[in-house]
Amino acid sequence: MTHFDTALSQHVQRTDTGRLRHLITLDGLTRNEITALLDLAQFYVRKPHELPARDQSLAGHTVANLFFEPSTRTRVSFELAAQRLGAYVVNLDMQTSSRVKGETVLDTLYTLQAMHADVLVMRDAEPGLPAQVAPFVASHVSILNAGEAHVSHPTQGLLDALTIRQHKPDFNNLSILIVGDLMHSRVARSTWRALNTLGIGEVRIAGPEHLLPPAHEFKGAIRHTDINKAIQDVDVVMALRIQKERMQQAHIPDDSGYCREFGLTPERMKLAKPDAIVMHPAPMNRGVEITDDVADGKQSVIQQQVTNGVAVRMAVLATIARGAHGQ
Amino acid sequence: MTHFDTALSQHVQRTDTGRLRHLITLDGLTRNEITALLDLAQFYVRKPHELPARDQSLAGHTVANLFFEPSTRTRVSFELAAQRLGAYVVNLDMQTSSRVKGETVLDTLYTLQAMHADVLVMRDAEPGLPAQVAPFVASHVSILNAGEAHVSHPTQGLLDALTIRQHKPDFNNLSILIVGDLMHSRVARSTWRALNTLGIGEVRIAGPEHLLPPAHEFKGAIRHTDINKAIQDVDVVMALRIQKERMQQAHIPDDSGYCREFGLTPERMKLAKPDAIVMHPAPMNRGVEITDDVADGKQSVIQQQVTNGVAVRMAVLATIARGAHGQ
Amino acid sequence: MTHFDTALSQHVQRTDTGRLRHLITLDGLTRNEITALLDLAQFYVRKPHELPARDQSLAGHTVANLFFEPSTRTRVSFELAAQRLGAYVVNLDMQTSSRVKGETVLDTLYTLQAMHADVLVMRDAEPGLPAQVAPFVASHVSILNAGEAHVSHPTQGLLDALTIRQHKPDFNNLSILIVGDLMHSRVARSTWRALNTLGIGEVRIAGPEHLLPPAHEFKGAIRHTDINKAIQDVDVVMALRIQKERMQQAHIPDDSGYCREFGLTPERMKLAKPDAIVMHPAPMNRGVEITDDVADGKQSVIQQQVTNGVAVRMAVLATIARGAHGQ
Repeated sequence: MTHFDTALSQHVQRTDTGRLRHLITLDGLTRNEITALLDLAQFYVRKPHELPARDQSLAGHTVANLFFEPSTRTRVSFELAAQRLGAYVVNLDMQTSSRVKGETVLDTLYTLQAMHADVLVMRDAEPGLPAQVAPFVASHVSILNAGEAHVSHPTQGLLDALTIRQHKPDFNNLSILIVGDLMHSRVARSTWRALNTLGIGEVRIAGPEHLLPPAHEFKGAIRHTDINKAIQDVDVVMALRIQKERMQQAHIPDDSGYCREFGLTPERMKLAKPDAIVMHPAPMNRGVEITDDVADGKQSVIQQQVTNGVAVRMAVLATIARGAHGQ
Repeated sequence: MTHFDTALSQHVQRTDTGRLRHLITLDGLTRNEITALLDLAQFYVRKPHELPARDQSLAGHTVANLFFEPSTRTRVSFELAAQRLGAYVVNLDMQTSSRVKGETVLDTLYTLQAMHADVLVMRDAEPGLPAQVAPFVASHVSILNAGEAHVSHPTQGLLDALTIRQHKPDFNNLSILIVGDLMHSRVARSTWRALNTLGIGEVRIAGPEHLLPPAHEFKGAIRHTDINKAIQDVDVVMALRIQKERMQQAHIPDDSGYCREFGLTPERMKLAKPDAIVMHPAPMNRGVEITDDVADGKQSVIQQQVTNGVAVRMAVLATIARGAHGQ
Repeated sequence: MTHFDTALSQHVQRTDTGRLRHLITLDGLTRNEITALLDLAQFYVRKPHELPARDQSLAGHTVANLFFEPSTRTRVSFELAAQRLGAYVVNLDMQTSSRVKGETVLDTLYTLQAMHADVLVMRDAEPGLPAQVAPFVASHVSILNAGEAHVSHPTQGLLDALTIRQHKPDFNNLSILIVGDLMHSRVARSTWRALNTLGIGEVRIAGPEHLLPPAHEFKGAIRHTDINKAIQDVDVVMALRIQKERMQQAHIPDDSGYCREFGLTPERMKLAKPDAIVMHPAPMNRGVEITDDVADGKQSVIQQQVTNGVAVRMAVLATIARGAHGQ
């Protein structure tokens, strides 16, 4: 896996006057910009038993979900965020779509913008598409990256930052551990970027040696291959999803082997601070990177991450739609 | 096929104070409760050429359709019912969803409730899921069973009862025949339960001997293997869908063989009361369990069942959403 | 390929009093009727950077998209048109739907109309279905043909006519060339019909000899097999999509061979009038029937066709819904 340069993404996601018009990467966003997005998201957060926030910020606007890589969970989160802002929403399953007819992706986007779509939410298993197409869409259109290969998942980074801020607002004095397959994780990259920009005290990363990222990434993070050392006295523990094929790559025999070496277990959690919170981007492999006790325990904020996810997507949709329309 | 105990379903679908919060089975519902649901559904019924009833009972609420077993017809019925009550609606095709990523069903439900979904409409080819998950969802969430294996299909039972009531309100003096593969029919079980609770005069069941239900089910119903005897002077005839593999199981050679032995034909209908109505849960196998003449004839109320289906689903959605929110 | 008679379609798409209730074919529509549809569509056209037109013409109405042949692009166009008129919209993927359960198409339509669907948008790879089912649906229901085999695609014909009218309103003095696989093209047939009824000056058709339509079709059109002659001094050039299997049928070796013989290239465009416009129904095979320079050049109105497509569909939906309800 080679390093993917996000310099292009940073550049193309702004208008000439510097406004955020697309959201492709969190790289290059200022602390003020991220804070403003989190503040707006917080405004949209409701308690679980309450009705969700809703307004008409996007009334008359159209949001199109283009998922080249399927993800029901993420698609529904974006779909509800858009609906609750009063937008029209259409879903395009790009795996069975006109790509079979040989149409280029850009022509699909041109078609959608000609139908007055304002925000194109894109998810792809390959890197590069959002930044490649952003310069070509019409000026009223925003590209919103909903997950791009191992590279970027900006709304996930924001929702993780928001969740941590709700529990541990004093970022300067926080220590967070991200554990698992960091090399292939768009979540880890975007979350690390958000926390770094917000001035987090300390980031530690831990995982099998073969699955740690290249040395030039996650600068300043402290690297561990022994989670029992890495987890000492941290305030936040975030487990990443591990895939079977990656375990083989890291010479780990099976699920229980991974759990033994890197899983979040109740015993291990005792090494972190007593009030540490536990996070996971989901979907979880229960019994692999996290045990049931921890996933469903008092320290878990995993469901809260999901709630924050819709709120963050509402905030981002409202913000970039304004940016594209020059407001 | 073993008997599936619905005692658990009855228990878990109520709050501690006895309000109906989920709808998993019609077992255990009182006559008053069923009547109240039918009355509300009747309030939502419109003539076919009129615009459908609509209000804002579920404004701000979110309904998620989770279909583990595909059924376009039923999904659309629930989708329109929810839309016409002003709800946000999302569809999840659970066959291609994150189950492929190994996520547990419960985690999917936790995710949806964290996104402020209020009603989870579930359909599954296996028995047990709704009652298993109901105790675990948050207190603002309702599980609505949209068809569960051979066990339960409560909104179908209600729409059948409503349809009969519209034509034959004097339930005490009614005689109904349900004919076909009762053993595997969730429709027959739920309809029988609804009619029984409402005090129907007489239920007869008829079908190939191998496809009649176990003796302890459909208590009080009169069993027949000769439809020509069973249909004598009944007020209501309901044909069930038969599947090829079930015919083989019952030693019936082919479609026309089934039609000859158990199909609703014009000749057979003459044995019922002259004003008898004909019902079918659809989709129909025309020329198998019912002939075109009967399906499209004057006595058929099959399209009316469909119209009532949307009205019943509106009534149930509104009722259980109130139940979950303690109103 | 045999000629498909649209006389039945013309007949069944009107009420007894002659109002347009379904839209199955443009054959038989008067100049006034087509002009009225284009005028209403023009009322719904907005500039690309503006919010789309929207009103509540179909508030309370229900539009169902039934796609027997998949087409994400066309489905989204109809879906947005219906949403922007305030309708409830449901999508049915008929390839994976209850046809697997052996239900007849007509029973599916009966079900949808019983659920108070008002407009059934149908697309099918086979000819005949819309006209076959139209006489059987209830009087409040309209069938809207969204593409039928090689036979008819009426909203495409209208959007092409609207696009031409916006640039070249003096139809009497216009010359248009349609180039490509006309034999299998529903687009060409519907567009030709619309232009003919509106009194276009001259229609030329060009393509490989094996892919020109039978002699009794496109009456009055001038036939060419040499595009370089055909394109001389025309005002409008419309390229059609070509499929690999058709190229073989026409003894054309490959993509570049087709482009050389029939593709719209910058050189060829110089033979048309200097202000000629270029059209394509999309999705395009870039480098085959049209080169990038032409598709994205100043003369191209291809994206404008897409914008007009939504507007035309809004106009047709509003018009036939009124026709079905006797207004």
